[in-house]
Amino acid sequence: MNSKIVTAAVLVIGNEILSGRTRDANLNYLATELNSIGVRLMEARVVADVPEAIIKAVNELRAAYDYVFTTGGIGPTHDDITAECVAKAFEVPHIKDPRAVRLLTNHYGEANLTEARLRMAQVPEGATLIENPVSTAPGFQIGNVFVLAGVPAVCRAMFDGLKGRLKTGDKVLSVTVSGYVGEGVIAKGLGQLQERYPALEIGSYPFFRQGRFGASFVLRGTDAAALKSAAEELRTLIRSLGAEPIEGEPQE
Amino acid sequence: MNSKIVTAAVLVIGNEILSGRTRDANLNYLATELNSIGVRLMEARVVADVPEAIIKAVNELRAAYDYVFTTGGIGPTHDDITAECVAKAFEVPHIKDPRAVRLLTNHYGEANLTEARLRMAQVPEGATLIENPVSTAPGFQIGNVFVLAGVPAVCRAMFDGLKGRLKTGDKVLSVTVSGYVGEGVIAKGLGQLQERYPALEIGSYPFFRQGRFGASFVLRGTDAAALKSAAEELRTLIRSLGAEPIEGEPQE
Repeated sequence: MNSKIVTAAVLVIGNEILSGRTRDANLNYLATELNSIGVRLMEARVVADVPEAIIKAVNELRAAYDYVFTTGGIGPTHDDITAECVAKAFEVPHIKDPRAVRLLTNHYGEANLTEARLRMAQVPEGATLIENPVSTAPGFQIGNVFVLAGVPAVCRAMFDGLKGRLKTGDKVLSVTVSGYVGEGVIAKGLGQLQERYPALEIGSYPFFRQGRFGASFVLRGTDAAALKSAAEELRTLIRSLGAEPIEGEPQE
Repeated sequence: MNSKIVTAAVLVIGNEILSGRTRDANLNYLATELNSIGVRLMEARVVADVPEAIIKAVNELRAAYDYVFTTGGIGPTHDDITAECVAKAFEVPHIKDPRAVRLLTNHYGEANLTEARLRMAQVPEGATLIENPVSTAPGFQIGNVFVLAGVPAVCRAMFDGLKGRLKTGDKVLSVTVSGYVGEGVIAKGLGQLQERYPALEIGSYPFFRQGRFGASFVLRGTDAAALKSAAEELRTLIRSLGAEPIEGEPQE
């Protein structure tokens, strides 16, 4: 089988996530969306609003993966330093984009286009704008790096608008089967199942519900036939341990 | 002022976070707790259940920060590979810890102590156990790396038990003032405030509530007097723009 793999990383930029003030809401969204279109999220990082930290992470991640998606730090205030850091990472000037200026002028009006708001038109030279249908100020793409807003509604709208232009690979399909069996009881058979299906990724996630321990088993891979057959073996394994296989996650 | 800074990183280990199946719940908890005791969370990473990725991240983070806290991958199933990867990162053998064996034997009983469950007694040589008051199977500490469970209730209980033995630095204090002013309007004055207080970290976080735009401004630093004085200047700045300063985050 000739499998095509496209990889990505997410870089969350913001002191507020690391201080605990804000609970990140973008990683889970991007993870789900990327995987659903056939892009594999391989790594995520959260860094502070510190130029060296941002530049280093951008350069490491863009070298290691097909795509990098950053969130946060593209507003008008002094702590919004993502665009200039990405310019530094790419070693290009940080310039005022005339299309971005036009968008912001139309949105705010000439009189309200403060110097601070104009900062949101600054992008690395050679960048392509990413549309922001929520609040106008655009994100941008340079090379394989996509710079998105941190505000979840804006981040999502930007990603929805750009995802059509991503190259995608084989989609990772997934089957979940659960059962009220202890992980420590099923582990041996599950490990053997994993050995019989080395191309699949079998994850075990314990839960405690209605006073009983159980686990959800997630089978992932690009080969639908292998997935189907492994899932059937898993159901048999669960039954052999005296439990009933439950399709998907158990209801609360 | 002689400030003492203790730093940390969090390493979340698990395919389920990167596939979008599971929303990480530990980062925000650890961020809040660490900051509250005077340890600064500088970076977080999420990596897959892939040995090379885990080993590389552990080694990079433990070299860069005072402490590293990992979550996930310490259960009994084949996909739980954190302990052996941490052993490899430290280049020490992965051994059966007799104290851990005793704990697990007491918990499960001799008859139910499957080979898989015994895997949870495997730790890097030289590690110290971290107590698990929820479900017994311990975490461990080796060097400056603390290996915690991924299940949120267990992760929290483990952290609560160990936090007393961390060295801590100056606590970062925080004041939040909000106002219904556009970020683009206050940005200039806010940037000047930041310049007058270079030792503080001033963050601006926009919101949209009750049909109006506003922002919360978070001032952070170790110098209580500077913080108080900067907050007072910020209130004056907000008033000068025709808005009323709101203490803390605005109510929904």
